[in-house]
Amino acid sequence: MNNFQQWGDTLRLLVELAGTAAFALSGVLEGARKRLDAVGIFVVGFLAAFGGGTLRDLLLDERPFFWVRHVEMLWGVLALCLLAMLFMRRHHFEATQRGIALPDALGLGLFTATGVHQALLTGMPALVAVLMGLITGVFGGVLRDIVCNQIPATFSDHQPYAVCAFAGGWVYVGAWQLGAPGWLALLACVGFTAGLRMLALWRNWRLPTWQT
Amino acid sequence: MNNFQQWGDTLRLLVELAGTAAFALSGVLEGARKRLDAVGIFVVGFLAAFGGGTLRDLLLDERPFFWVRHVEMLWGVLALCLLAMLFMRRHHFEATQRGIALPDALGLGLFTATGVHQALLTGMPALVAVLMGLITGVFGGVLRDIVCNQIPATFSDHQPYAVCAFAGGWVYVGAWQLGAPGWLALLACVGFTAGLRMLALWRNWRLPTWQT
Amino acid sequence: MNNFQQWGDTLRLLVELAGTAAFALSGVLEGARKRLDAVGIFVVGFLAAFGGGTLRDLLLDERPFFWVRHVEMLWGVLALCLLAMLFMRRHHFEATQRGIALPDALGLGLFTATGVHQALLTGMPALVAVLMGLITGVFGGVLRDIVCNQIPATFSDHQPYAVCAFAGGWVYVGAWQLGAPGWLALLACVGFTAGLRMLALWRNWRLPTWQT
Repeated sequence: MNNFQQWGDTLRLLVELAGTAAFALSGVLEGARKRLDAVGIFVVGFLAAFGGGTLRDLLLDERPFFWVRHVEMLWGVLALCLLAMLFMRRHHFEATQRGIALPDALGLGLFTATGVHQALLTGMPALVAVLMGLITGVFGGVLRDIVCNQIPATFSDHQPYAVCAFAGGWVYVGAWQLGAPGWLALLACVGFTAGLRMLALWRNWRLPTWQT
Repeated sequence: MNNFQQWGDTLRLLVELAGTAAFALSGVLEGARKRLDAVGIFVVGFLAAFGGGTLRDLLLDERPFFWVRHVEMLWGVLALCLLAMLFMRRHHFEATQRGIALPDALGLGLFTATGVHQALLTGMPALVAVLMGLITGVFGGVLRDIVCNQIPATFSDHQPYAVCAFAGGWVYVGAWQLGAPGWLALLACVGFTAGLRMLALWRNWRLPTWQT
Repeated sequence: MNNFQQWGDTLRLLVELAGTAAFALSGVLEGARKRLDAVGIFVVGFLAAFGGGTLRDLLLDERPFFWVRHVEMLWGVLALCLLAMLFMRRHHFEATQRGIALPDALGLGLFTATGVHQALLTGMPALVAVLMGLITGVFGGVLRDIVCNQIPATFSDHQPYAVCAFAGGWVYVGAWQLGAPGWLALLACVGFTAGLRMLALWRNWRLPTWQT
């Protein structure tokens, strides 16, 4: 059983690293499209990777930030941005974009779950916890787009993204309230969120448009 | 006298609900103009309604946020955004815009007063308290416009809006320093702010332009 | 020796005032270019002057903010914005821009040093402290540009600015870890940051462009 849990922890760490890398790369790509300079690429990469969790910690008044406790993640994203600028060229962008879809979806699920979990621990009501999960998963990308001076893609591309995090957040809350063990709630939330996101991408689902 | 106070509390609650609804609707309208998807409409509605007070609480380090204590307000704004998307059409926009002018002005006054009050309670100097009032009343709309990728209307439309909150904030500080009871300071601030705003709208006052 | 320290304190205060004024003026100029109204000019001036330090205090969970402890700085920036609008005309803009280059560079150095110092005091790791210094020095301008609805100049103009703060931050960390007295670390950081910035301006250095 101990062995089993160790596998679980390793898996979780891998998903976290892959998700953070995917978020950072989404920032790097966006920065490149907007022709930012090297400083801008770094900042947008950092914002995309850490912005959501930082905003959650600010709102929940949690300190130290997770990237202060795990400063090696800062160094990792720094190195990733540097490597991207050294070796990535425009003809790699589309493949990268497609390649990060899965880790991005997994990261969305994991970050949502951690946000909901942390909010529930501090005694927040269910809706607030779900919103905290959504903020954790989605607002890194929102900050990235605001700094890049465009309407956040999540709010305007009519693809289900934040909606997946919102639904997945309720899955976590449900599992929590049914008294499920932590790893099961986490697994259900990540599986549901990432699965829904990949399904939406694959079937090309669109959010209903407001016919004004 | 008890009866009188009950009436006052009810009135205040009504103004708060009407003001929050007006702020949320201003977000919904802006989101519709920018052709956001359903998720974007919700987020911008939430930001417009709760952004100012949340920023104030962040700056004053107050927790829990008022929308955590009154989670029913979150549900209310959620329902309002949903209803707007279901039943509101483009030809309703102008009437809505005109219809929310008064509740928006009352909300501006009330939110300014609560911001000033809360800052004075934590011992802030007068100017800081007034700025906190202004942030509470105005920065929901600022965040709304930033997410919608435009220069905040309050800073560029040359209409007196933030100025009304600023002046009303000083009215509150003045009443407070003269030892007026809370309800009188509140009434004076709301009346002055909302009155000034409606007067400015009616007489079409313009802020002085910087003739560069 | 007492005399010597007094001179140091006075010098530091002068640099702080000059730097704050330069930052505020950069906001005023940007606001004028974007044709903001009087309220917008004030807000953007405040954001440019105090935004970076406020964001640092938010992230480090420090209260009260420095502009609450020194409310006279708020009044000063208010007066400065007012004077600028009364007496500055478009043909003064370029000279102002050139004139604030030096105080802006000194301010960048000083604010970076205070950010690093405060983060080290609260036990942050070196990289986090340097990033806090960078945020203190640079993010006032970032917030200014976000409100003015453009990509932050620091991230897109290919001039070394944030990079100078980043390098200067490491100078402070190095001096701190070598056990240098506070005034020496401060002097080294300000001198290095401001010197590098002025050198970059003078020699027209460019950040390496990512050849995608």
